[in-house]
Amino acid sequence: MSEPPKILVVGSVALDSIRTPFGETVEALGGSASYFALSASHFAPVGMVAVVGEDFPVKHRALFESRGIDVSGLAIAAGRTFRWRGEYNVELGHAHTLETQLNVFSTFHPRLDDRHRAAPYVFLANIDPDLQLEVRRQMRAPKLVISDTMDYWIARKPDRVLEVLREVDVALLNEEEARALAGETQLVRAAERLLEQGARAVIVKKGEHGALLRSREERFVTPAFPVAALRDPTGAGDSFAGGFLGWIARSGRIDASTLRQALACGATMASFAIEDFSPRRLIETDPAEVEGRLRTLYEMVHYDLEPVFPPNPNPK
Amino acid sequence: MSEPPKILVVGSVALDSIRTPFGETVEALGGSASYFALSASHFAPVGMVAVVGEDFPVKHRALFESRGIDVSGLAIAAGRTFRWRGEYNVELGHAHTLETQLNVFSTFHPRLDDRHRAAPYVFLANIDPDLQLEVRRQMRAPKLVISDTMDYWIARKPDRVLEVLREVDVALLNEEEARALAGETQLVRAAERLLEQGARAVIVKKGEHGALLRSREERFVTPAFPVAALRDPTGAGDSFAGGFLGWIARSGRIDASTLRQALACGATMASFAIEDFSPRRLIETDPAEVEGRLRTLYEMVHYDLEPVFPPNPNPK
Repeated sequence: MSEPPKILVVGSVALDSIRTPFGETVEALGGSASYFALSASHFAPVGMVAVVGEDFPVKHRALFESRGIDVSGLAIAAGRTFRWRGEYNVELGHAHTLETQLNVFSTFHPRLDDRHRAAPYVFLANIDPDLQLEVRRQMRAPKLVISDTMDYWIARKPDRVLEVLREVDVALLNEEEARALAGETQLVRAAERLLEQGARAVIVKKGEHGALLRSREERFVTPAFPVAALRDPTGAGDSFAGGFLGWIARSGRIDASTLRQALACGATMASFAIEDFSPRRLIETDPAEVEGRLRTLYEMVHYDLEPVFPPNPNPK
Repeated sequence: MSEPPKILVVGSVALDSIRTPFGETVEALGGSASYFALSASHFAPVGMVAVVGEDFPVKHRALFESRGIDVSGLAIAAGRTFRWRGEYNVELGHAHTLETQLNVFSTFHPRLDDRHRAAPYVFLANIDPDLQLEVRRQMRAPKLVISDTMDYWIARKPDRVLEVLREVDVALLNEEEARALAGETQLVRAAERLLEQGARAVIVKKGEHGALLRSREERFVTPAFPVAALRDPTGAGDSFAGGFLGWIARSGRIDASTLRQALACGATMASFAIEDFSPRRLIETDPAEVEGRLRTLYEMVHYDLEPVFPPNPNPK
């Protein structure tokens, strides 16, 4: 058996047709596993478990391979590839789904081979929480498992989503998902509530406001990288997850310091995803550019606290 | 002439009646100058220029004095004190104004005496931008002038609001105000646009997402202090301004490092304002508690970036 991939992702590979105020794209490469894998591939070898139809363009598969991504788990099923059509308004906050064709994805049932089961770092991308649990239980002895979800599953299977939260090391959610799942409008309380409900650690992705990590021991916040020309927010969350888990897999450590760096790396990779349509910028970027953005983010938050708080000698 | 106050604030002193999902208060002390002065008084001597009516409770004046606030500029005019009645929904994001009685505030025309004109640090709180400009021009040689505004003035006098922006050192706005004034939905671009329009530096207050500072040289972000029990967001922005300018006045420096500390101090003081109705917690707090929150905020954002970004040896 050849060496297992450092990172395993189980999710969707799709063809996206997207319109934003800044342009549009038709049947471009999309899907949570695609964005994640292309992002994480900057840091460590990635294996992908997903399904496409017979119409999936071979150039996309070649792109994955050119990034060193192991596509032995990318099954080709009879039928058409999963398609999503959506648009964003000028605020770019929320995608408005115009059409979803599940196609071959509707019967997706991830089967992991022995190599995949041995991967130390795992991303359970946004799929049915029942499938996420199946995958989780197939893994041999992973060092770190992270998960994503979406409003659709929170509305339909909240208990199963919470079960996933309890079975993974870090659960990623966006702001609205965290509020909805916790039943709390204030984000600080929502994160705490999710810990009370059994999550070990949660990362709340806040779009242009960055991301926060909350666990029993840890409370960390990173801003978003300040992108001057946001064109298409699709894939930001999965690219964030790719930067986060990629950083951890590359360093081989899961201590508090590494987790903080990993969040900043997630924010950095998300910034590339949103600068252009489909994963174009995410593929184009290189270590020097990634490092430059990491340094910018670092400099945006750091300061000295000394001299320590000076009491006011004035009022009684 | 006795020594001028270190900090001068020109703004409103009001009686607020507020309802939130967590309680309500009737005719409590409110107004931008009140929150600002009580916040800043933890750091340096504050002088207040504002107007109240003959019905203004003497206990509030005594409270200001007990905090070492110079109220020689708090005029008492014939008539009733400015009153505001508002409520917040469960999201606590935006106040819904139920009633505004300007009363004596409708003819407010700040007149500064020589002592006030000599103050080195000035906060032009949210009043008519024409009045803000009048006050700005009466100041002798201030070291740092900061301003606030609100949607009402941006809608009615956008050119005058921009004129204020150009005449002060740092303009404070909340997220919606920055977007509206700049005509840009993306916050990063909105801040840049305001610099292009002549602002020297802007601080965008983002509520539970913290605040950012943007100038030609500087790009800094601080998270909000994670308050577990938010009860009434009224006064958060003015308390932020009080912590920000208070820190600067206390340290006597305006370098980049001090500005960053000052933003964290602003976020810290805002966190006290929102934990209870009216400025109760803001008054109660003490240097040890302030320092504790400053340290928490500091620890929430700091990390090492070393070892530097490791390139992925894997993909071609």
